[in-house]
Amino acid sequence: MKSVTFDKINLGGFWKNRFDINKTATIPMVYDRFSDTGRFDAFKFEWKDGDPNRPHIFWDSDVAKWIEAVAYTITKTPDKELEAIVDGVVDLIEKNRDESGYFNIYFTVCEPDNRFTNRMAHELYCAGHLTEAAIAYYNATGKDKFLRLMCDYMDYIEKVFIIEDSAEFSTPGHEEIELALVKLYDCTGNEKYLKMSSHFVETRGTSEKDENSPYYISHAYDQTHKPVREQERAIGHSVRATYLYCAMADLALRLNDKTLYDACRRLFMSIAEKQMYITGGIGSTHYGERFTEDYHLPNDVAYSETCASIGLALFARRMSLIEPDSIYADIAETAIYNCALAGVSLSGKAFFYVNPLEINVERRRRNKEFFQHNISGFDITQRVEVFDCSCCPPNIARMIASIGDFLYTYNNDTVFVHHYFKSDAEFDGIKIVQNTEYPNNGAVKLNVKGMKGKTIAVRIPSWAENYSIGAEVAKTEKGYAYIAIDCDEAEICLDFAMECRLVAANPEIESDAGRVALCRGPLVYCAERIDNGIALNNLSISADLNAEILFNEEMQAYTVETDGFEDGVFDSLYRTYRPDFNSRRIKFIPYFAFANRGESDMLVWVRIK
Amino acid sequence: MKSVTFDKINLGGFWKNRFDINKTATIPMVYDRFSDTGRFDAFKFEWKDGDPNRPHIFWDSDVAKWIEAVAYTITKTPDKELEAIVDGVVDLIEKNRDESGYFNIYFTVCEPDNRFTNRMAHELYCAGHLTEAAIAYYNATGKDKFLRLMCDYMDYIEKVFIIEDSAEFSTPGHEEIELALVKLYDCTGNEKYLKMSSHFVETRGTSEKDENSPYYISHAYDQTHKPVREQERAIGHSVRATYLYCAMADLALRLNDKTLYDACRRLFMSIAEKQMYITGGIGSTHYGERFTEDYHLPNDVAYSETCASIGLALFARRMSLIEPDSIYADIAETAIYNCALAGVSLSGKAFFYVNPLEINVERRRRNKEFFQHNISGFDITQRVEVFDCSCCPPNIARMIASIGDFLYTYNNDTVFVHHYFKSDAEFDGIKIVQNTEYPNNGAVKLNVKGMKGKTIAVRIPSWAENYSIGAEVAKTEKGYAYIAIDCDEAEICLDFAMECRLVAANPEIESDAGRVALCRGPLVYCAERIDNGIALNNLSISADLNAEILFNEEMQAYTVETDGFEDGVFDSLYRTYRPDFNSRRIKFIPYFAFANRGESDMLVWVRIK
Repeated sequence: MKSVTFDKINLGGFWKNRFDINKTATIPMVYDRFSDTGRFDAFKFEWKDGDPNRPHIFWDSDVAKWIEAVAYTITKTPDKELEAIVDGVVDLIEKNRDESGYFNIYFTVCEPDNRFTNRMAHELYCAGHLTEAAIAYYNATGKDKFLRLMCDYMDYIEKVFIIEDSAEFSTPGHEEIELALVKLYDCTGNEKYLKMSSHFVETRGTSEKDENSPYYISHAYDQTHKPVREQERAIGHSVRATYLYCAMADLALRLNDKTLYDACRRLFMSIAEKQMYITGGIGSTHYGERFTEDYHLPNDVAYSETCASIGLALFARRMSLIEPDSIYADIAETAIYNCALAGVSLSGKAFFYVNPLEINVERRRRNKEFFQHNISGFDITQRVEVFDCSCCPPNIARMIASIGDFLYTYNNDTVFVHHYFKSDAEFDGIKIVQNTEYPNNGAVKLNVKGMKGKTIAVRIPSWAENYSIGAEVAKTEKGYAYIAIDCDEAEICLDFAMECRLVAANPEIESDAGRVALCRGPLVYCAERIDNGIALNNLSISADLNAEILFNEEMQAYTVETDGFEDGVFDSLYRTYRPDFNSRRIKFIPYFAFANRGESDMLVWVRIK
Repeated sequence: MKSVTFDKINLGGFWKNRFDINKTATIPMVYDRFSDTGRFDAFKFEWKDGDPNRPHIFWDSDVAKWIEAVAYTITKTPDKELEAIVDGVVDLIEKNRDESGYFNIYFTVCEPDNRFTNRMAHELYCAGHLTEAAIAYYNATGKDKFLRLMCDYMDYIEKVFIIEDSAEFSTPGHEEIELALVKLYDCTGNEKYLKMSSHFVETRGTSEKDENSPYYISHAYDQTHKPVREQERAIGHSVRATYLYCAMADLALRLNDKTLYDACRRLFMSIAEKQMYITGGIGSTHYGERFTEDYHLPNDVAYSETCASIGLALFARRMSLIEPDSIYADIAETAIYNCALAGVSLSGKAFFYVNPLEINVERRRRNKEFFQHNISGFDITQRVEVFDCSCCPPNIARMIASIGDFLYTYNNDTVFVHHYFKSDAEFDGIKIVQNTEYPNNGAVKLNVKGMKGKTIAVRIPSWAENYSIGAEVAKTEKGYAYIAIDCDEAEICLDFAMECRLVAANPEIESDAGRVALCRGPLVYCAERIDNGIALNNLSISADLNAEILFNEEMQAYTVETDGFEDGVFDSLYRTYRPDFNSRRIKFIPYFAFANRGESDMLVWVRIK
């Protein structure tokens, strides 16, 4: 099975709007903030003790992800200015890299004697992100200098880590290089890189050097507690975990490795069935930014990092390539439209690193000390322009710029339609036009050309309880309806009835007990105090929703009003229970749009009466 | 206003049963475990480097509280064996104390060069508890050796801390000596001790030495952030806080100090109105065992230490002596019958240090690492016989042995009846017999002798929504009904209708939103899984209770069954909400009786439908 890459797809509608904001607002904003903080200047290798802006161990990767976002963007909308910035960075990499091919800002400028001695120091992680950037830039522009530099670097890494085995650790403390090496194999056709990826993946959890390396929290924190094929459940730092699982899925596909796929499936399901917020967020605690335990999904102290949700979507996309089971695209959709998209403001200029499912501004203010010491290092009620650890902003930028990657996969017989974006696509003699207002309306008109004798398999979203498919369905399997195409041009009308619905959580999730989340199509909704006027835990939603929707231009989505109730308030700490509540309407907005109108309480899981 | 001390009171019913268990089970159990762990042997001062059971900085106080419990017990039921053990300890104190009068095991045996250098090391705290024990033992037996030793020690402390001001700190890092010094003043009539107490209380938050001393978390942790009269709300370590507030109230009463009382009132109300669990537990977090912020009262990770709840009851009792406002006895009652009493098993042999309001055994097991690192050092699902930091077991023992202290206060005109215990009391020519099955039944028959021309003021419990008082009530003020007694012998029948009722929490308490607690009289109830069979968050109680009660011999209290509902369970993480619940009965037991039948989930705040 192959991907249809984003460059083959022209977007309209919801995602075109986001692509434009990403280009005009996010990419310049991230560039400016990264410049202010010295991340670009760091590539000059001029920093000296006493200077401001001491390079950080993962600054290379911050800029690399920004370059990747730029590369995807200029693929669709060329931009000489952006290209010139990237060329400048590439020139600096060429100029400042070691003659061995090695390139790392921090370990050349700040700790030159400690190359490849510190497993926790993100060296191979940076190499991976630079490689992803180089491939993206090569694909975008045809310029191969950056790519050649990174090939040299990877050759040096092969020498140190595999041929000579002379580094002080065997596998990276933060995965990323594994999936980058598969991309490099795909780009260059050089099998060496696939073998390198396989080496790093399979060595994890088996190396004495790693076992004896310092670690944070535990070896499970960076998935080094067991050989990857034996890992039973997603564990540890959730970004690290999903990047590893991406590489495992990449290898399983390319090496046709069934047992490796089984491990991926097991890990994926351990997230989907036990460890994922309804928004597609993962990682329940600030302490280690990681998975905790099954069903432990607190809302106000949720970590639910933007990058982790992106990582989950990337992992899910890779799984769709191996086995057409709609759970993968369902989860990708959930993560993309909710947790990941919440990571960037509607303006495109401010970001969340942590995406809680409940904010009580006053409580967070009162409990600042408690929140800081016990739970979360981030006092998140408003998006900001840059973080010290600013991995998320360029990550969401590269995801939006290449969102088309998620749309289709295909083999000789069948094209799989995983998502519904207003778009037209052309690949291998096939043309598919999607006309839809998705995610705001479930009606989709597919116009298909060049598929005579082939099959189109359309995903039935898991949220769609009622739907119609205006064509003969040969079979429905694992969430896909298979439709044989018997003419040169076909039109297929799908209609996934997009009603407001309430979702309940498994009773094991204590924080959601007695509560529901309002959803519509792929979008999870939340209530903000700014719309509702009172403390949100005083509200209960009515099971009989009586919902009304209203299109919001800025959000490019519907807001929802429902029936509900407002409890009486009182001053004392406790009082005899009285069912004194009044009917009222409750306003909801899409979760991705929260915190765009100043500081406000926010709640996803609203009580149900 | 004066107290009627416990020695003037003979108990029957509920508390006589507890007193007997305390004597026959708790006191021997604590003695055995303290012996096993070297706490008694430590008084021999024979420990040397390399020996097991290195003395701990607060072991003196552990044994002191045990002696205090013994003293109260043998006051009512003499016991030569117990007396001999105490005499042996006192002999060791006499033998091993410093010629200056100083006595401290740890700072003589383990760090002899560091006397009074470490504000965090509980030295004055131990001195306070030993003094309380000495006074109790003197009152119980008339033997004054221990008392004299402690007077010598206090004289030495006066010299070091007040006359010479030569210690490296000015006030103790853990309050206790302040209230002990007031007791010593009451016992000896020596005003010096009252002045010493006042000195320590008033110096707190004003001393440069203390300001520059090392601290844990912050100066607010041990209430040293401000002069005590300026403190706005209860803050910091909750046991430290309540012990300080006890001394402040003691001083306010004895010095007739209105502004100090005002500070006490403000601090008390900041607990009662914003920071107290419905069980009378205080201190919401393991980190610092302390108050966090208003309305932050999480249930499963509640700290709610037994000692803190006892401290709150002791503080409330002192406040009742200054101003007859029933809120004080209401809170004391809540703490005593619920959080504090839960600190000891029904058998009297096992203890809780931390008293959560929710236990989910499976969740705690799954989340062990998360619970340990983030929230609570104690993985509490079962009571144990001894803790490393075993302050609570002897504290609950001394509280139960002297529970009569809470019953009455009086002045020349009026006797205040704060609580209802089956009992007879004789003091200052007055005899009061209470016939009642309280806390299980709200009917109380008071027989009063020797009060002709005086007034008896009976507390109307805050939980009593319907009640009758079988006598002419002259006035009702601040929760007390004042009844003039115009004959030598009077009988007054009170009836506080004790119905099962549901209590709601202030909507600001997020963890209780949409939930209620079942209460009956002063008792808070909880559901245990062992009685209900399923995950407790799957249950909802019906607002229409239809309650049935059943007396339980072992608990000496009623269990309750109510109407409720059981939600359908499902395996997936999320699903479309369906109101599929079945009617069922729900069983509740008094909170104080939880965790007496093996490990089980437990829940106080049950969802309401």
